[in-house]
Amino acid sequence: MTVRVGVIGAGMIGQDHIRRLTDVVTGARVSAVTDIDAARAAEVAARCGATALPTGAELIGSPDVDAVLVTSWGPTHSEHVLGAVAAGKPVFCEKPLATTAADCLRIVEAERAHGRRLVQVGFMRRFDAGYRQMKEVVTAGGIGAPLLVHCAHRNPTVPESYTSAMAAQDTAVHEIDVLRWLLDDEIVSAQVITPRSTAKRFAHLKDPQLMLFETASGVRIDLEVFVNCQYGYDIQCETVGESGLVRLPDPAGVGVRAAGRHGTVVLQDWKDRFKDAFDTEFREWTASVADGTEPTGPSAWDGYAATVITDAAVRSLESHSAVVTVDMKPRPALYGGTA
Amino acid sequence: MTVRVGVIGAGMIGQDHIRRLTDVVTGARVSAVTDIDAARAAEVAARCGATALPTGAELIGSPDVDAVLVTSWGPTHSEHVLGAVAAGKPVFCEKPLATTAADCLRIVEAERAHGRRLVQVGFMRRFDAGYRQMKEVVTAGGIGAPLLVHCAHRNPTVPESYTSAMAAQDTAVHEIDVLRWLLDDEIVSAQVITPRSTAKRFAHLKDPQLMLFETASGVRIDLEVFVNCQYGYDIQCETVGESGLVRLPDPAGVGVRAAGRHGTVVLQDWKDRFKDAFDTEFREWTASVADGTEPTGPSAWDGYAATVITDAAVRSLESHSAVVTVDMKPRPALYGGTA
Amino acid sequence: MTVRVGVIGAGMIGQDHIRRLTDVVTGARVSAVTDIDAARAAEVAARCGATALPTGAELIGSPDVDAVLVTSWGPTHSEHVLGAVAAGKPVFCEKPLATTAADCLRIVEAERAHGRRLVQVGFMRRFDAGYRQMKEVVTAGGIGAPLLVHCAHRNPTVPESYTSAMAAQDTAVHEIDVLRWLLDDEIVSAQVITPRSTAKRFAHLKDPQLMLFETASGVRIDLEVFVNCQYGYDIQCETVGESGLVRLPDPAGVGVRAAGRHGTVVLQDWKDRFKDAFDTEFREWTASVADGTEPTGPSAWDGYAATVITDAAVRSLESHSAVVTVDMKPRPALYGGTA
Amino acid sequence: MTVRVGVIGAGMIGQDHIRRLTDVVTGARVSAVTDIDAARAAEVAARCGATALPTGAELIGSPDVDAVLVTSWGPTHSEHVLGAVAAGKPVFCEKPLATTAADCLRIVEAERAHGRRLVQVGFMRRFDAGYRQMKEVVTAGGIGAPLLVHCAHRNPTVPESYTSAMAAQDTAVHEIDVLRWLLDDEIVSAQVITPRSTAKRFAHLKDPQLMLFETASGVRIDLEVFVNCQYGYDIQCETVGESGLVRLPDPAGVGVRAAGRHGTVVLQDWKDRFKDAFDTEFREWTASVADGTEPTGPSAWDGYAATVITDAAVRSLESHSAVVTVDMKPRPALYGGTA
Repeated sequence: MTVRVGVIGAGMIGQDHIRRLTDVVTGARVSAVTDIDAARAAEVAARCGATALPTGAELIGSPDVDAVLVTSWGPTHSEHVLGAVAAGKPVFCEKPLATTAADCLRIVEAERAHGRRLVQVGFMRRFDAGYRQMKEVVTAGGIGAPLLVHCAHRNPTVPESYTSAMAAQDTAVHEIDVLRWLLDDEIVSAQVITPRSTAKRFAHLKDPQLMLFETASGVRIDLEVFVNCQYGYDIQCETVGESGLVRLPDPAGVGVRAAGRHGTVVLQDWKDRFKDAFDTEFREWTASVADGTEPTGPSAWDGYAATVITDAAVRSLESHSAVVTVDMKPRPALYGGTA
Repeated sequence: MTVRVGVIGAGMIGQDHIRRLTDVVTGARVSAVTDIDAARAAEVAARCGATALPTGAELIGSPDVDAVLVTSWGPTHSEHVLGAVAAGKPVFCEKPLATTAADCLRIVEAERAHGRRLVQVGFMRRFDAGYRQMKEVVTAGGIGAPLLVHCAHRNPTVPESYTSAMAAQDTAVHEIDVLRWLLDDEIVSAQVITPRSTAKRFAHLKDPQLMLFETASGVRIDLEVFVNCQYGYDIQCETVGESGLVRLPDPAGVGVRAAGRHGTVVLQDWKDRFKDAFDTEFREWTASVADGTEPTGPSAWDGYAATVITDAAVRSLESHSAVVTVDMKPRPALYGGTA
Repeated sequence: MTVRVGVIGAGMIGQDHIRRLTDVVTGARVSAVTDIDAARAAEVAARCGATALPTGAELIGSPDVDAVLVTSWGPTHSEHVLGAVAAGKPVFCEKPLATTAADCLRIVEAERAHGRRLVQVGFMRRFDAGYRQMKEVVTAGGIGAPLLVHCAHRNPTVPESYTSAMAAQDTAVHEIDVLRWLLDDEIVSAQVITPRSTAKRFAHLKDPQLMLFETASGVRIDLEVFVNCQYGYDIQCETVGESGLVRLPDPAGVGVRAAGRHGTVVLQDWKDRFKDAFDTEFREWTASVADGTEPTGPSAWDGYAATVITDAAVRSLESHSAVVTVDMKPRPALYGGTA
Repeated sequence: MTVRVGVIGAGMIGQDHIRRLTDVVTGARVSAVTDIDAARAAEVAARCGATALPTGAELIGSPDVDAVLVTSWGPTHSEHVLGAVAAGKPVFCEKPLATTAADCLRIVEAERAHGRRLVQVGFMRRFDAGYRQMKEVVTAGGIGAPLLVHCAHRNPTVPESYTSAMAAQDTAVHEIDVLRWLLDDEIVSAQVITPRSTAKRFAHLKDPQLMLFETASGVRIDLEVFVNCQYGYDIQCETVGESGLVRLPDPAGVGVRAAGRHGTVVLQDWKDRFKDAFDTEFREWTASVADGTEPTGPSAWDGYAATVITDAAVRSLESHSAVVTVDMKPRPALYGGTA
């Protein structure tokens, strides 16, 4: 069975996922496309042999759509996800699940009412080979119980539209999700410290930021977010346990010796760094839809948790590095909790 | 357009490629399967929704087959490839193209008579990301003109059926192909030196072997083939040029510090090491078939050259390390030559 | 001229430095030894051809002593250092310079009264080849202005006598000194965060600890102190600047591939890790004494600063991770300041 | 006791060793210097507080000389070494021990007549920490019985006076010595293959050269000698055994990420690469002289063997890559043999 995916939002990320579903992932095809810009929807739909539809609601309701992919503007996510849940259709929503914790909770409640998981949120790092190896080592007890995680998330530059709050909301959110999964633990507090900012950033921006998180079991996470580091896109993660540590590898690249130096290239683009993770993410999601099983990727609850935790980080940033407690509801049974 | 592939030979490697064409590569599907064991053909065909056919000839002739994949027993390769060329159908042939240089030449001649390339031979290393980066560095002049290449090809163990000649025919043949492509140069002589053999091999086997090749432009290649190295599957390649060198990376894996050691895992299986290369190989081949363009992978000529060069290496092994000149025909214009 | 060194304190570290001055460093010899245990002094002195003297005061006053090495019990350091300064003799004092900031200041004042530097404090990391390379890169502008430093200081285990305060006083003090020197900047606040402690420590101990420091120019330092990490003695340091970063290398060791792993040994003992740094430290100190120039190593002021900063860290630890401002006097002109 | 060393030959290498004996190694001092240029001898002697003497013979005979260091012009080595042996004094001779195998044998015979080892030859790699670790791993059985060794010896450039034969005599001779020691095995044949030469060399020179050696037990060694590699001074060595391999580390250097690359510096000068090895070499030699024990470094026999093996390599080079058998006398009992 080929999964017929309807795509809501045909912008850059939407088009990239359409390409992925069309050219990379077997077992899926894009059957319908909608966008706030109808001309763009038509053009993109034509290119992938899909039908352009006028609204998300019509797309969700279409009998030619088995599953929904939401890649529209963030503030519209929750409406479409709720629509898909109401229709009982699997839905993959790019991050964020919703722009407020309240809206995320609404989706969680709708899904609970439905009785089984339909929603997957687009945090791709859980599908990265390095993080998966790291989780295997941690789970197998190879380093003992985790105590500390040291991370860095660096981009070469960001545009002027990138704000200080986005360091948590758009950037650190990836570490927040993947570390909750890696540690199988919940984040309970956040603190954001601001070193002297680099001269190489727009004046309104605090960059770098040093974020500290504490988990329920007492693990401490430090995360450098530095989005104008100039030299490349660089993701570092080291988990320190009671008897050892495990560190994410750098991407494999040929080593060159020339002109007195031994070196390798540092990637510049997050899309290159996580290309395989994105492919695996959509491959596994497609398989879960085809099999009619619940998705195994990040859930609506994970989307809610990420929003609540980034909210706490932003509040810390705005209150001059106060330690802010994460105010999270009890985790419902549908998501492995007891509520 | 979905490329309909007919598969001749449903053994282990055939089934793996069927899985790849079915589950990994978009734009292709297996439409027909044949095997010397009709029951196996039927079973495999049923699993992938293909038709089982009694013979290679019928499969090649079937209107449901756009392109042919030959993964049968080596001695039967040339017959099926010649059949496909006669039918004017693109054909992907697992290595070896044929078991003798004479049979390889027959295919080359048939393809020349046809007037355009139809044949691709299954040397997957040209599709490996590391070798491709290495070729980019070499081609861009990053290390100057190449002078030397140091290689190692190690397997943990081999079964008793593996013979000393297979070190060249089955193992070194991968380096022979990829280095001809990497250097854009021809191998003109071969010499095989036999160190003391490891105690950890079957008694009939010379293992390891140290192979030396010379190219037309005077580049020297040394290649350690060691198929009972015990510790893992390990591929090394370093190209030394007039101003620098470039080295293949080890596969990326998490680093672990524990119990007084810092380490990473060494892969054990060539299928893991070259998984992505195999996927890319079939993706690009499928695309060339779909586009109706000539394949860009290893040609019938490359299959012929590999056979002639491995023949020379085997002759050197059998003649106690004599330097054996490679006796190759002039390269026809169809393959970029002048003959 | 051979520098005749009088050694106060013939315990483990004293004996190690005596060996170094005797067997490793040219241009120095140990001429006198004293210890609270007169028998031990006699025995150690006999072994290195020195005279055993009954007290530090007599040793300092001896005409056979050109320079003094203080390796006695910490609380006695300041008395001996003050004695040497009063006698106008160069003095090398193992850390700490004194156990209280007030006593450190007394030494600073005595040295100011004397008018030139006589005191060097035993922080050996400034003499480590890796840190020196890092400082060269930073000073040469290779990474732009520093913004963040990430450090880890790990020991395999510590004895029961090691207390939570010693994580700052005995362990982090090395990073505190070397980073002040590396950054040419002053530390102005300290915060100590306590993750869940490892099960593999004595019950009274908080281990690991995550220490945060801020410098006058706004650089932020995070330092993991983990003294029961089990796997080895491991020192990590990464300085992140406006355009790049520089990272301390791991000690060079042969790589071994065997049994499915590629790995290197992790050192177990800080004396192996910093052996060359200790040798260089004493070589350069001996040379400065022989030349009659001021020592170039850590000064009395650096000893004072380290004490004040570790005091702040201990206060933070005791006040549940409060951010504690470092209360440091203005730096006198003798030490490059303006006071 | 301070070992009083008389130095024959005050050129560049002689002066460097004088500096080492004076400033780096404890327990030794230079007491006498001679040189073919008397003015230079006088000047160098004055600088290190030694006496200038007119001839090597007088220096060897001087009662102020406990041990002799020969760093004169190669063709004069054997005369001075024979003189020292005749005088019963320990003698350290820079490579080569003598310029012909016959002269080396004369020294061996003189030493045998004397009845105990007095001679050490200046092959410093046996004192390098990396090679020592490698030997420990090999000896401990960590990789099983050795089968292959892959080496590279690269210099950035050489002056015009460097000849093709010197690739064996001056460059490969270091690997020849250290591998005989590492493997505890004898080299029995040599073959030198000449790839296309780099354009970046003087026209008379064959560079690079690929040298192949076979040992008595059947281990095969391949060694790239490339003395105009441009990018740096780079020493590589990998020993492959029946169950694993061990590889020499690159020198530790800080890693820098900047401008899209992650890299480390490659050393340019062999004196930096083997600085610690030279220091250890003289420290251990001085200790053996002081203790009155036989030297543990390379012996006269090792000097003879190196000469015979490099002679074979040069003959192979001159006879177009013929395999040349090493014609070595039986090893006398004094050197661990049975003759």
